[in-house]
Amino acid sequence: MRISVMQATASVPGGGVPLEAAVAENLACIDRAAGQAAAEGASLLITPELFTTGYSPATIAPHLTDTVVRRIDDGAADIARAHGLHLVYSAPRRAADAWGITAGIVAPSGERLATYTKVHLFGGEEQEVFTAGTAAPPVVRIDGLNVGLLICYDVEFPESVRASAEAGADLIAVPTALTAEFTEVQDILLPARALESQVAIAYANHAGPAPSLEGPIQLGGGSLVVGPTGTLVASAARHEAGPSELTLITAEVSAEDAAAARARVPYLRERRPVVYREWAADR
Amino acid sequence: MRISVMQATASVPGGGVPLEAAVAENLACIDRAAGQAAAEGASLLITPELFTTGYSPATIAPHLTDTVVRRIDDGAADIARAHGLHLVYSAPRRAADAWGITAGIVAPSGERLATYTKVHLFGGEEQEVFTAGTAAPPVVRIDGLNVGLLICYDVEFPESVRASAEAGADLIAVPTALTAEFTEVQDILLPARALESQVAIAYANHAGPAPSLEGPIQLGGGSLVVGPTGTLVASAARHEAGPSELTLITAEVSAEDAAAARARVPYLRERRPVVYREWAADR
Repeated sequence: MRISVMQATASVPGGGVPLEAAVAENLACIDRAAGQAAAEGASLLITPELFTTGYSPATIAPHLTDTVVRRIDDGAADIARAHGLHLVYSAPRRAADAWGITAGIVAPSGERLATYTKVHLFGGEEQEVFTAGTAAPPVVRIDGLNVGLLICYDVEFPESVRASAEAGADLIAVPTALTAEFTEVQDILLPARALESQVAIAYANHAGPAPSLEGPIQLGGGSLVVGPTGTLVASAARHEAGPSELTLITAEVSAEDAAAARARVPYLRERRPVVYREWAADR
Repeated sequence: MRISVMQATASVPGGGVPLEAAVAENLACIDRAAGQAAAEGASLLITPELFTTGYSPATIAPHLTDTVVRRIDDGAADIARAHGLHLVYSAPRRAADAWGITAGIVAPSGERLATYTKVHLFGGEEQEVFTAGTAAPPVVRIDGLNVGLLICYDVEFPESVRASAEAGADLIAVPTALTAEFTEVQDILLPARALESQVAIAYANHAGPAPSLEGPIQLGGGSLVVGPTGTLVASAARHEAGPSELTLITAEVSAEDAAAARARVPYLRERRPVVYREWAADR
């Protein structure tokens, strides 16, 4: 299956720009990316973490309403339908009284296939504004490929990728918002996550500035697709300063590649979950 | 603390060489390495998997006796005492009627501080000849540094490194026997294991040929020390053909470096073991 990964600078509310206007601009950007992805033959487009609202937890938090989320969901479904592809997008979402960071997959029919709430929130601002999820990462079947969902910091934990692989994932789609100084995630962790659990990983990052409680941050691009042997398949430019044009990377991902990696070294079959559970119980 | 990692070609029994003679030769090689390590100021020497007998499960299996193991243990204790350092060495060892692959740490006093039995056996020959362990990897305190033990394939599993880090390890000593074609272990997995659990890893490999049931194999060198941010600290040459001279790499490892890595990104504190257990129970 051909997949595309979007990298761009999101519009962030503030300075006279209301959340609704930022959302409209960001959905328009995703729509352009979806048009380009469809033209390149992709059947799945993956977009960055909270790209729909802009990645700025404290800035967006006071303005979040169910109406805004509905507007985002409707917009995402419209984009998937208009371009005939599956869309992974990320938005804040409320469960009971707690807002979480979520990612969802919407089908070309407009049907929502899965929703996942980020389990590992990164840093003080996210942890203050949002509540972490506890549900297992979902896996959905799309055109013969099992696609999982994780968000940003989640993928740095081998436990989350393992859980996705054990649930059958061939590919894990990861919306992210990684700042420019943490390049060890792309350089060291993502190839290992892919290799050790023998799944492909598609990592969609913002490239550009965003406000935070501790001053402006720079989201660092470097979106990538890594294959189930840990080999880099495609990557977008890293981005150390300023806003960025919309960039798309496109790659082929297959269940057969994951199966071939698992046949070479049977990591998933030879792990010893019963033994690990005993160790944990003894601690 | 200064540590040394030994890389060499082991003598393997067969072709007229009895196991006892191979053991004597291999202990003499470890003794030379220990002399060199002590001269370089190291207080810990780590040697490869089954270096004492030669890495050749099917060749050594018919000749294993408790007497041979006692000879190895006594020899290792003599070496530690003679050179005034801690020695990590690996030998087959029997528990009830089952032989496992073990690694142990012996102190400069000759006292045995820990024994660990390999939990993840690699490939058909190992799995036929040996029985896998189930006990958690041990961690022992040496000169203010918490040192864990894993063996070869074990370290490719994030679960084993996590268990060691949760038990307090600052450094994990890993005797290994990695063939030359699996360089993704050194290039991709070991830096990630160190970074994700914020421990240093010392990986001691053979360099040279060994017999196997499927014909001769080439053990590929590339022994290394990686720090708790995933940065390569020291490495020995890769070795694609033929026997090799004794090589030693020496590096400084500290509990402070591990603590600093954990302060930058709190992976160990922010993992969610209760949530992971619920996911596993639901599968």
